[in-house]
Amino acid sequence: MAQEPMKTGLMKTIGAGLLREDDSGTEVQLAGWIGRRRDHGGVIFIDLRDSTGFAQVVLNPEDAPASQDVLHGLRTEYCVQVTGTVRPRPEGTINTDLPTGAVEVVAERLTVLSAAETLPFPLDGRTDVDEGLRLQYRYLDMRRERVARNLRARSKAIRAMRNVMDEQGFLEVETPTLIASTPEGARDMLVPSRLRQGQFYALPQSPQLFKQLLMIGGVERYYQIARCYRDEDFRADRQVEFTQLDFEGSFWGQEEVLETIELVARRVVTDLGHSIAPDPFVRMTYAEAMENYGSDKPDIRFDMKIVDLSAVLAQTEFKAFAGVLADGGSVRGINGGQLGLARSGLDALVSTAQEAGAKGLVWMVVEDDGSLRSPVAKFLSQSELYAIAEALDAVPGDTLMIVADRTSTVLEVLGRMRLHVGQPEGHDDLAFAFVVDFPVFDVHEDGTLSPAHHPFTAPASLETLVDSPETAVSKAYDLVLNGSELGSGSVRIHDASMQAKVFEVMGISADDAQRRFGWFLEALRYGTPPHAGFAIGIARFVSILQGEPNIREVIPFPKTQTGADPLTGSPSRVEEDQLRELGIRIAPDVVAAWAEEGGGATATPDV
Amino acid sequence: MAQEPMKTGLMKTIGAGLLREDDSGTEVQLAGWIGRRRDHGGVIFIDLRDSTGFAQVVLNPEDAPASQDVLHGLRTEYCVQVTGTVRPRPEGTINTDLPTGAVEVVAERLTVLSAAETLPFPLDGRTDVDEGLRLQYRYLDMRRERVARNLRARSKAIRAMRNVMDEQGFLEVETPTLIASTPEGARDMLVPSRLRQGQFYALPQSPQLFKQLLMIGGVERYYQIARCYRDEDFRADRQVEFTQLDFEGSFWGQEEVLETIELVARRVVTDLGHSIAPDPFVRMTYAEAMENYGSDKPDIRFDMKIVDLSAVLAQTEFKAFAGVLADGGSVRGINGGQLGLARSGLDALVSTAQEAGAKGLVWMVVEDDGSLRSPVAKFLSQSELYAIAEALDAVPGDTLMIVADRTSTVLEVLGRMRLHVGQPEGHDDLAFAFVVDFPVFDVHEDGTLSPAHHPFTAPASLETLVDSPETAVSKAYDLVLNGSELGSGSVRIHDASMQAKVFEVMGISADDAQRRFGWFLEALRYGTPPHAGFAIGIARFVSILQGEPNIREVIPFPKTQTGADPLTGSPSRVEEDQLRELGIRIAPDVVAAWAEEGGGATATPDV
Repeated sequence: MAQEPMKTGLMKTIGAGLLREDDSGTEVQLAGWIGRRRDHGGVIFIDLRDSTGFAQVVLNPEDAPASQDVLHGLRTEYCVQVTGTVRPRPEGTINTDLPTGAVEVVAERLTVLSAAETLPFPLDGRTDVDEGLRLQYRYLDMRRERVARNLRARSKAIRAMRNVMDEQGFLEVETPTLIASTPEGARDMLVPSRLRQGQFYALPQSPQLFKQLLMIGGVERYYQIARCYRDEDFRADRQVEFTQLDFEGSFWGQEEVLETIELVARRVVTDLGHSIAPDPFVRMTYAEAMENYGSDKPDIRFDMKIVDLSAVLAQTEFKAFAGVLADGGSVRGINGGQLGLARSGLDALVSTAQEAGAKGLVWMVVEDDGSLRSPVAKFLSQSELYAIAEALDAVPGDTLMIVADRTSTVLEVLGRMRLHVGQPEGHDDLAFAFVVDFPVFDVHEDGTLSPAHHPFTAPASLETLVDSPETAVSKAYDLVLNGSELGSGSVRIHDASMQAKVFEVMGISADDAQRRFGWFLEALRYGTPPHAGFAIGIARFVSILQGEPNIREVIPFPKTQTGADPLTGSPSRVEEDQLRELGIRIAPDVVAAWAEEGGGATATPDV
Repeated sequence: MAQEPMKTGLMKTIGAGLLREDDSGTEVQLAGWIGRRRDHGGVIFIDLRDSTGFAQVVLNPEDAPASQDVLHGLRTEYCVQVTGTVRPRPEGTINTDLPTGAVEVVAERLTVLSAAETLPFPLDGRTDVDEGLRLQYRYLDMRRERVARNLRARSKAIRAMRNVMDEQGFLEVETPTLIASTPEGARDMLVPSRLRQGQFYALPQSPQLFKQLLMIGGVERYYQIARCYRDEDFRADRQVEFTQLDFEGSFWGQEEVLETIELVARRVVTDLGHSIAPDPFVRMTYAEAMENYGSDKPDIRFDMKIVDLSAVLAQTEFKAFAGVLADGGSVRGINGGQLGLARSGLDALVSTAQEAGAKGLVWMVVEDDGSLRSPVAKFLSQSELYAIAEALDAVPGDTLMIVADRTSTVLEVLGRMRLHVGQPEGHDDLAFAFVVDFPVFDVHEDGTLSPAHHPFTAPASLETLVDSPETAVSKAYDLVLNGSELGSGSVRIHDASMQAKVFEVMGISADDAQRRFGWFLEALRYGTPPHAGFAIGIARFVSILQGEPNIREVIPFPKTQTGADPLTGSPSRVEEDQLRELGIRIAPDVVAAWAEEGGGATATPDV
């Protein structure tokens, strides 16, 4: 073996992970990283890894006395190039678990392309590494098969989406990301303009108005893999920037949109190696979802529906139930199945329900004789107990959970208890559902209303919206997978006068609407086609299919939950000069806070 | 005919532009916009346009007495739905120039989906409309075939690029757009963080460092259609946000990158309906490009090379030339060919050269007898004149142009004169060229050096870079089409110590490098593969192929040259509350300037 200067040009003839028994006798050039390394009586074995997998390379110093120093200096994650000959592994050393396990490469030359210092964490996939450290060294983290596999899956998912869109005649159009600030629920991120000091662009929360403009412009079928931005307080599993498949069409309605979504979702599932039944995705209204599952994103991999017990308890003398019913609330329950909980476990259910917002939770365990054991059994009549058991399809060993409260609270709490005791882990089953007919307004406890969707969503009936806004339904729909919302969309308003009316009902004055959306209201006046669309969040979808617990696992360079990037140190303070150019200053209170922290001020206010 | 309420669901059975003679007798449902409209003795003919083209629809009020009002109220750009039967056009009315010219649709029902007010400009494609107005009403502008065609071409170009990348095994990876601010030539756009007040993200000028991290992470072949941002002073044909095909690979070199670019470029050209010769793209060094064409982005659709006349004039007694040669400058010329200019035209050439930075320009016209007519002919010997004519391949009628000055000035001026007299308009020929071996530094007139590329570009030789930086060459290359730079790339530095040395030569101190790029320098230390990549600007490429004079024509929603969007009014002032949340203020001088303008201050500084 001899070391040679690095060649320009292609440095490998084949991917290490692609070698097979057929290649025996072939001279190959490999390049990649040193994984495991083992010394056996002077002969060194290394796993040479590249993007295709890895192969075993045999280095015999006797073949190259001059380079013994190099060979013994080789360390994990060195980037090397190897020229050698493929041969079958000696009998007894064949590894049938590995794609390349039948062969090894006997090295004739080895070149160190780039040395590696000791890594901050091992890449063996067996060590549990702190996520902060993983993000700080994401470029090393992605050498591990888990992250590499997720990046490939994400890429494949996006390609699957594009393929369906292309086949269906959608035109890919890029919409701008430096746009006007238009309040739309969550907060805009702003970008100060240097040429127009004191003015700002906003980053889009979605391409909503631009895609509607494309419809007005006659595009008819639009899609985009769109980068979007939302400056929310970070919750688990949210990112300040995210990507969605965004599409919109004209001269079609909800039915065609849902069919298109289903085509897309099925293709992604298939291309990522999963399978689902050919039955059409389940569809239910928002009201049905809430009533049955206590959630607008029901996990229907398991049944455990919520059952209204109000009727069977209409005459109850149990005050906790009777009082709630008299106040217009309801009593509902779920059958948690064979939980086999001891008393402490049952008490823990009560605590969980209370954390979810219930005043309390009544548990009942079905005894072998069919009777119900419960702290409140004594307050209920035998016929009531029997009716409860029957309504909940109870069999011996089942644990029933009952909540009495305002109906919205009951549904929400039981929805959470349902997930708490019933939701499967993993992703072996994929249960898609469409939830349709969302309400126009969220009704708050104090009776006030707030819009549930952006104001461009078409109401099912303008009359109902005006006469009875709290019960009005809009032409909005969600796609749900295993209890997660994958995306949402709606039929849009395509009539300027209806748009004006909806603004009015939503409490946006004509002046305000004009100031905020005047340019869009004008656009509606030049022959707007009926149109509808949808957006699917890519990270969420891929993370579920990959069985990953959070979306960061399928994002190439994710930020933390507080929006920081431990790798590059963003966001960060910038030079005062840079801000001066933009015509902005840091607020004095922020600078003062820095001074108190003792961190000094990189940028100071101009006061 | 009768009006019917709008149906939900798919509102058309076929695109209007797709109707052919074969469809005669078929009942169809069309939906789209009213283009031209003609009344002929009570019968109304309309061109119904949608995204597929348009068809002639015949509306006979006698078929629908009740809807005469509607028919006579129909105006241009109304959005309508028509149900009717296809029939061959009567003889004599067939229009063979139109794809649908053999048929018409006899309407049975017409529904107005959405009325249109009078448009701010006609969409006939014959009227010259002010660009500001076009951008303000871009959604109407894109109903015109010119813009619609460009959007389709752009989409097709991007798809062609992706197809090649996918076929070649590149992995599509999304890099973040909220990144750390890293000065890289032009200015970063900043995004204030709300959760970390006083800190900023930057929008990427390119995914440069992230794609290098992907190489370190073992991705080997990466690509992305990447949105990038550059806060430059706007020049003609620049946008503050733009899109590029960005790719990078490991274990390969310049040769393989150029081959990949050529594959991509050829596919785009072909898919957009153009053709180019199968010969490999021309390659030349930067030095050759400057020497022959006076430009690092030569338009080689025409020859007209620059010729060095210094040798043939070495002994000249003409002081203007002799002085320049004595000072180390040069005398060079081009043969402008058969320009046929009168004296005023020839004088205009001199002015053009002076505007380009020359002190003067010598023109010579070749007379029928082969002699040279020129204001300076009398100062040159017969043998010198003969040698000039011979060096420039002059034939009777040719106009020769000669400049004497510092060599860099001579080349630049003659490069511009070459384009001035020779550059063809349009895009019938497509002449691609690779320019390679760019210098590491731009050498300024005063002898100072400034880096010509970002500091991650590999030098051809580290020794030369250290010993003689002004002549050092880097492994950087450009793709040029018809005199426009389409993109650029380089082999990158993959060795931490070489990177440190390059920073040093570029005048970036170790401390400064650590502060600005510390995280990246660390990443280089864990086994970095040799890697190289490229980026192609999409708008420029598509605009040339579409024969469009500026990139705005192929951008769905472009901004003006000063970065404004006349449609949405961005950038704009925002509420003070919004800025308070972000911990920033408008600078007092900016607010003061607003007050002087009398515009009032939407946001005021907190002083």
